[in-house]
Amino acid sequence: MKKLSAAELLELSPQRYRRLVRKGDWKKETFGVCRGHALTDLIIVSKEYAYDCLAFCNLNRQALSVVDITEIGSPHPKNLAPDADIRTDLPRYIVYKDGKIVDEPTDIMKYWRDDLVGFLLGCSGSFDWALREANIQPRSNGVFSTKIACTSYGIFHGNIAVSCRIFKNSAEAVRAIQISSRHNRMHGPPIHIGDPAAIGIQDVSKPDLIHPWGGLPPTIPSKEEVALFWPCSATIRGVALKSKIPFMIVDHLRCMLVTNALAEELSIL
Amino acid sequence: MKKLSAAELLELSPQRYRRLVRKGDWKKETFGVCRGHALTDLIIVSKEYAYDCLAFCNLNRQALSVVDITEIGSPHPKNLAPDADIRTDLPRYIVYKDGKIVDEPTDIMKYWRDDLVGFLLGCSGSFDWALREANIQPRSNGVFSTKIACTSYGIFHGNIAVSCRIFKNSAEAVRAIQISSRHNRMHGPPIHIGDPAAIGIQDVSKPDLIHPWGGLPPTIPSKEEVALFWPCSATIRGVALKSKIPFMIVDHLRCMLVTNALAEELSIL
Repeated sequence: MKKLSAAELLELSPQRYRRLVRKGDWKKETFGVCRGHALTDLIIVSKEYAYDCLAFCNLNRQALSVVDITEIGSPHPKNLAPDADIRTDLPRYIVYKDGKIVDEPTDIMKYWRDDLVGFLLGCSGSFDWALREANIQPRSNGVFSTKIACTSYGIFHGNIAVSCRIFKNSAEAVRAIQISSRHNRMHGPPIHIGDPAAIGIQDVSKPDLIHPWGGLPPTIPSKEEVALFWPCSATIRGVALKSKIPFMIVDHLRCMLVTNALAEELSIL
Repeated sequence: MKKLSAAELLELSPQRYRRLVRKGDWKKETFGVCRGHALTDLIIVSKEYAYDCLAFCNLNRQALSVVDITEIGSPHPKNLAPDADIRTDLPRYIVYKDGKIVDEPTDIMKYWRDDLVGFLLGCSGSFDWALREANIQPRSNGVFSTKIACTSYGIFHGNIAVSCRIFKNSAEAVRAIQISSRHNRMHGPPIHIGDPAAIGIQDVSKPDLIHPWGGLPPTIPSKEEVALFWPCSATIRGVALKSKIPFMIVDHLRCMLVTNALAEELSIL
């Protein structure tokens, strides 16, 4: 595949980007492509666990906001990307069995079964487009586990994971709270401002779940800077481990599905 | 029970109001009580249908926004009103069997089973408090069925029902769109402005599902007035009939559960 410039990557259609992923021509994180499009994380479980999983997501919807659901046995998210295939259109997956990671494949064709269902979850990468349009470009500090417990349901339990963004001053942080609040299916507003220790994060420069997207390394905020923490779909990774769900597949770190919808089309609904 | 004044009714606590309902001392619609508290509609289904029902609600979440879920077999909504009992704390219920109404009881103790689960759904009565605080008091025109199809899931299908409010001018209608948008778990913004025929309503002065709450009778808007239409949880009533769900219980017309949460506490989340 011919190397595309940053500008060309931004202008890729979701269809063309997903085709690159499907063909194995895109092997890295989903970043800097398909400007403005809603990005979603993924949970796949068996029919047997589908109700408890969906109820758990509903009760923790700021972290796990379900924006589309496939029919049981179908890999196609019929509302947000009917032409996508969740088995092949994300760059990499994590496969869990009984609370342990057993595989990190680039497609999940061999794991697919007729009793599986896919939930698409809103991702904060979706409102990053809106921050960018407002000329706000926080430093991403990665994703952290916290001491904040999820609302449990059935066997599903765990703690909320958060993404951390560092803003250069209070004015930008306030604007970011306004803008992300509009994107209520993409986690909405942050759940914490300021002191990371208050939510159980010992060192905000050392993300323990997902490292930041490219750019600068994670840092401790300066006196002027403001750290904001958003609930993150990576919450489900801790839940998969702790709850020992017999079988679950999720998207790998930063390897989201790009949907056909623009993030703005889904905002405030 | 001593007759309470309108002011006293507004200041009732959710606990005290629910106790009145439970004891049979409150037999009418849930209206004008517990100022500011979030009102929710109710769906009860068996475990067997719980997943499809919850997925259907998720895919139609502007109409059917699930804000709490009981554990299977439990009648207590542990997040929004743990001290409530969904079997007794709503003034009246509708019981469906195989797509037909079979009972309209004032409590459902005799129907309760260990395999039932309750979903609480956001209700637009919740954002009416915020409109009132902004000195906007639209005329309620009741609830209508429409020709807008829901996104189906499993056997669950039907059309969206809408509540109609008539505002005295454009300025108030715009303000109401802003205010209700903040209450995104309580239907959020309207889905239609203006011509009722465009969404399949032949006569906007003749609601076919639920008549307005007290006050003036439904009317045709004047030239200056603006009609706004919000998705409504009564959508599930048409779905129960059309989809012939073997067993389902919902709240009767305007007989909601009053939760412990303030509507504003749940807004923009």
